Parts: sequence; structure tokens; C-alpha cells
Amino acid sequence: MKILLPDTMPLNPALPEGWVAVTVDARAEIPAEHHDAEALVLWGPSRTHLTSAVENLESLRLVQSLSAGIDGILAAGFRQDVVIAAGAGLHSLTVSEHALALLLSLVRRLPEAREAQARHEWSTELGGLQPLHPADRVTTLIGAKVLIWGFGEIGQTLAPTLKALGAEVRGAARSAGTRGGFEVIAEGDVLAALPEVDVLIDILPASEQTAGAVGAEAFAALPDHAIFLNVGRGATVDQVALREVLEAGSLGSAAIDVTDPEPLPADSPLWDAPRLLITPHGAGGRPVGPDERIAANVRALMEGTEVLHAAAR
Amino acid sequence: MKILLPDTMPLNPALPEGWVAVTVDARAEIPAEHHDAEALVLWGPSRTHLTSAVENLESLRLVQSLSAGIDGILAAGFRQDVVIAAGAGLHSLTVSEHALALLLSLVRRLPEAREAQARHEWSTELGGLQPLHPADRVTTLIGAKVLIWGFGEIGQTLAPTLKALGAEVRGAARSAGTRGGFEVIAEGDVLAALPEVDVLIDILPASEQTAGAVGAEAFAALPDHAIFLNVGRGATVDQVALREVLEAGSLGSAAIDVTDPEPLPADSPLWDAPRLLITPHGAGGRPVGPDERIAANVRALMEGTEVLHAAAR
Ligand SMILES: NC(=O)c1ccc[n+]([C@@H]2O[C@H](COP(=O)([O-])OP(=O)(O)OC[C@H]3O[C@@H](n4cnc5c(N)ncnc54)[C@H](OP(=O)(O)O)[C@@H]3O)[C@@H](O)[C@H]2O)c1
Ligand SMILES: NC(=O)c1ccc[n+]([C@@H]2O[C@H](COP(=O)([O-])OP(=O)(O)OC[C@H]3O[C@@H](n4cnc5c(N)ncnc54)[C@H](OP(=O)(O)O)[C@@H]3O)[C@@H](O)[C@H]2O)c1
Repeated sequence: MKILLPDTMPLNPALPEGWVAVTVDARAEIPAEHHDAEALVLWGPSRTHLTSAVENLESLRLVQSLSAGIDGILAAGFRQDVVIAAGAGLHSLTVSEHALALLLSLVRRLPEAREAQARHEWSTELGGLQPLHPADRVTTLIGAKVLIWGFGEIGQTLAPTLKALGAEVRGAARSAGTRGGFEVIAEGDVLAALPEVDVLIDILPASEQTAGAVGAEAFAALPDHAIFLNVGRGATVDQVALREVLEAGSLGSAAIDVTDPEPLPADSPLWDAPRLLITPHGAGGRPVGPDERIAANVRALMEGTEVLHAAAR
Repeated sequence: MKILLPDTMPLNPALPEGWVAVTVDARAEIPAEHHDAEALVLWGPSRTHLTSAVENLESLRLVQSLSAGIDGILAAGFRQDVVIAAGAGLHSLTVSEHALALLLSLVRRLPEAREAQARHEWSTELGGLQPLHPADRVTTLIGAKVLIWGFGEIGQTLAPTLKALGAEVRGAARSAGTRGGFEVIAEGDVLAALPEVDVLIDILPASEQTAGAVGAEAFAALPDHAIFLNVGRGATVDQVALREVLEAGSLGSAAIDVTDPEPLPADSPLWDAPRLLITPHGAGGRPVGPDERIAANVRALMEGTEVLHAAAR
């Protein structure tokens, strides 16, 4: 049995007996001699590569993406009986680290500090004696009310750190409940919750249901001092509405690591929106522990046990 | 018995029976009718205020600073029998939050992201597929070796968060041991430890012993990819040496919240040092829980028990 590994990162999974791993060019068509592969690992595949996999791998049983967001793969047209597994969890530490970096940078006003530094200015607005909780601004996570919309692997990794820093954290997902010790509200209750939220963090996957989830209505419901973060998918946010609330001053500040489309075109007005920080989809991009996940899911496939993060199709 | 409170922040300590609190202008001389005060709380006092306290408060027994760094107060000339208590601990959450903001901002290269954003550039160097641990740069705290030099209240608050983010954390203080579950090395062993350090965080107080502690020798011992942070006191760093290693490219990047002197003069070459982020002493500046500390130390004074964070004099 053969598994194809991408050449886009070093991989060395400990496969069960009988499996052979072949590394292929993730940006090219799959060579004819490997059309017999039963498993395929994807990391940064080109469209050509994906199409070639859909069209040529007739024995394919498992597609293991190392990416947490698999909207593109789900849309590629694999046969219904092919198991498609997301790399959810492999990016939890890195994406939550990046989300924290973006959030603390906004809370501690580091972009403004950088501008003051460029002017050689020791700003008394940014330093010195300050109130802990100014009326019009979030300047610390201590006591801040945070809502994480999309409370999966990444959200549940981020939440305890925010809590340790003094924030009150809740999640929002498709169903309400308690996860990892945190209260989770259902998506239908998000809008009603937003007026009490200081920090809204979007870690939603892209799907038909989540498209434009954070739009004009959500931004209007948030307090004017609120901070908004998106490390999920660009399509979950109405970018025009985001720009408008920033320009109108009815959102404190925002940071987004994902946009729609990506790359964000050079002529997009979003680049210049006030109090907005943009990073170029750099939160994840470096799976932690991919070998273990690949090996575990190949084993699960063989033994007929549950494939981790297999997509419902 | 009378305690003088500064007008520089709202305070309302629950004092023991027999005590009366009076709020005075922290930027002015102490009015004659309050020269009978036995306790004095300081928060952002002017030099005039401090001098007036030293010269006029003849019954003074306790000076409670709300600041963690009390080098200025210790040097002001209070009588030897006056207990001088630092506000150590009141700034642990805020300063460690700021240190984390600075550190993650450097690790996640947010200043560079901001510059790319200004150019409307979706940088493939900052985003997309990346190695988890590039050879020449620290781009995640996962696996990063962090040394916190000055491992007191603030350091011990910061350490667990860094650990939760995946870093390997050690402290350095005047004596070796284990504190809060973290290995602490003695200051004499710091230099030898630095070649293995990815991130050095200075949270030292200013004193004769710590002056210039992080100088040319320390910077030379750190690897070229290392990140340096100072949220302690400006005087603990040799700023010329810092600028030189940044200019020479033999230090990865740095962020400092404190300088010597403060404010940093507009003509200081430090403002323009490459890969250096400067914030204007904004890490703390907002004590958390000062009322409880004041009340506890007034009680301790009366009962003859230990005054929290009383300075050895
Ligand atoms: N910026 C980056 O570099 C980067 C890197 C990795 C991942 N990501 C993005 O982050 C997303 C989340 O990753 P993850 O590992 O945390 O995935 P996950 O474990 O699958 O969690 C997804 C969460 O979103 C929730 N969700 C899905 N549809 C929803 C809806 N319609 N309404 C409300 N909640 C909904 C899920 O709710 P249930 O729990 O109710 O199912 C779950 O809580 C990925 O899909 C990807 O798009 C971005
Ligand atoms: N940037 C800001 O806004 C801000 C705000 C608050 C405080 N600070 C600074 O942060 C400093 C630390 O605050 P803290 O609350 O953590 O104080 P702390 O609890 O008193 O801790 C000070 C630490 O420094 C160590 N230390 C002192 N002299 C040393 C030396 N010669 N060599 C090695 N270690 C030495 C102490 O070692 P031992 O444990 O062995 O005594 C202790 O671990 C303050 O003094 C202040 O200067 C800055």
C-alpha cells in the first residue's frame, strides 16, 4: 500500500507494516507510476496537484490534509467514499500563539508605539500612570470579556491562556454546552451576546453556513471599544462592513490574518483601514506533530477505527 | 493616625480603626496641616512631593509605594527607621502582559507585517507555508529557551504563561534554587547560560549591583538569533552595547519598555536602532489591588508583623 507525501515539508511518519511512503511534488501532477496510491497527504497543494489526485488516484481511500481548513479540498470533487481528514489540532499552538500576538499588540497599542518611536516621541498617552480600565478602550486583558466564535481545537487551546491573563472567556459553536471548562453558547445566541463583548475572536472554518457570519449586524452589536480578530477564514467576515465600522470609529481596533481573497489585492481599500492590523495568513503554516497524525490516521483507516478529524460529507 | 493618599489614582483602602485617610496632591509639597501623617502612599510623586515628605513628615513610620521599582524613593533620604514598602506584585499581571505583548510581537514579526501592510504587500516571507524552526530566527515560542533575569513577582507571573505557550523557561536571581516550579540559576551563572538562550527577558530592579548587568559581554554571549526584552529598569542595560549588537546584526531583535534616562531624549540614536521596539514605560503604570495592599501593610505596621515587600535598608 502506498501513501504519497508532499515535498512541501519534511515528513517521516512511522507507518504500519506494508505501507510505503513516496514523496511527490505538491505543486505538480501526480506521476503515473503513483496513481495506485491509497492515501494522500496534502500540504500546500497546487490546483493542478489536487485535480490530478481527484482524477487519477483510483484506489484512493484517505486524503489527509495537514491544514485545519479544508474547504478547498472538500470542494475539489473527491469520490464520496474517500475519507477526507483535516489537520485540525496541528495548528492549535501556532494559531493561538499568533492570535495572542495580534490581540496583545492591539491591547497594548504596539502599532501606535511604533509610530511614536518613528517620531522619536516618548508618548505620555501610551506610558506612565494610566487607569487600569479607561472608559473608551480595552488596554488590558484583565477583566476583558472575550468571545471566541468557532470553539474547536484552536479556540480551546487559546482560551486557557487568555483566562490565565485575566480575561473572562466564552466560546460559540454550533451547539451550546461546556467545553474544556469553558461556557459555549450556540451560534444563534451570538448576536444577543455581542453587546457585552470586549474582544471577539473569529476562528470559524469557511463553509456555506459561516460565510459573512461577522457582518454589519455583528459589528453594530459590538460596543464601540471592542477589538475584533480573525484567524479563521477571510470569507467568514464581511470585509466591507469591517472597513466601514473602523472608518466610522464604531469598532476599537481589529487584526486579521486571513482575507477574502488571498492574497489580498494591492488595490484593496482594506490595507489602509484605520486601526486595522493585517498579517498575510501567517498564524499557522507550520504543522506541529504531522507525522504522528498521519501514522495514526493510516492505522485508523486499516483498523476501521475513527479517523481523526474526518470531515462529514 | 493619619495616612496620606496620592491624588494620582482613585484609592479607598479599608483601614484599621483609628486611621484617617487624606488625599493630597502628589505633585506638590505636603500641606502643613498634614505633617503629622504616620503613613504615606506614593504613586507618581513629583520630586517636590518626595522632598517635602522627607523633610516635613516627622512622625512618618511607613512609606507605601504603589510602584514595584523604588530606587528613586530609597535614594530620597528617608530616616532609617521609616519602613519603605515596594508595590511589588501590584504590577505582576500588567507587566507580564506587556512583556508577552512585546515578545509575541517580535516572534510573530508584527512590526514587519505592519510595514508590508503599509506597502499593500501580501508578504510570502511572513505568511504561507513556513518551517516551524528556521535556523536563523525565533518565530515561535514552541520549544524556545527563555531566561528571565530577575525572577521575582513579575517573572514568576510571566513564566507559567510562557511555559503554556511551549517555551522552556528558567529564571535567574541572586541565589539559585527552584521557585514556583521553575529552575532558577544564580546571577554568577547567567553569562555561561546565555549561549543556549533564545529569549532573554530582563525584569531586574535598578540597583548598584544591577547597573549595566546586560552589557556587551552578555550580548556577545547570546546567539545571533536571540531576542532581548527589558521591562525592568533602563539602567540595567548598556544601551550603547544594545544598539551596537542590533546594528551589527548579532542580536535577532529587541523590545524595551524602560530606558535610561526616561523620557528617552528625542536625539537618542536608540530610537532608530534596527529591529528594536520601544514603548514608553507603559508595561505597568496601573496597580492592580492597591487598596488591599495599603490596608494590609498599615495593619502589619500596627501589629508589628511583616510589612509586605519592605525594602532591606
Ligand atoms: N490563520 C491560519 O493560519 C489558520 C491556520 C489553521 C486553521 N485556521 C482556520 O481555523 C479554523 C478552525 O480550526 P480548528 O482547528 O479550531 O477547527 P475545529 O477543531 O474543527 O473547530 C471549528 C470550530 O468552529 C465551529 N463551527 C463550525 N461551523 C460553525 C458554525 N456554522 N457556527 C458556529 N461555529 C461553527 C465548530 O463548531 P462545533 O464544535 O459545534 O462543530 C468548532 O467549534 C479552520 O477551519 C481554519 O479555517 C486558520
Ligand atoms: N516597566 C514597568 O512598567 C515596570 C513596572 C513594575 C516594575 N518594573 C520593574 O520590575 C522590577 C521587578 O519587579 P518585581 O515585582 O518582579 O520585583 P521583585 O518581586 O522584587 O523581584 C525582583 C527580582 O530581581 C532579582 N534581583 C535583584 N537584584 C538582583 C541581582 N543583583 N541579580 C540578579 N537578580 C536580582 C531578585 O532576586 P532575589 O529573588 O534573589 O531577591 C528578584 O528575583 C521592579 O524592580 C521594577 O524596576 C517595571
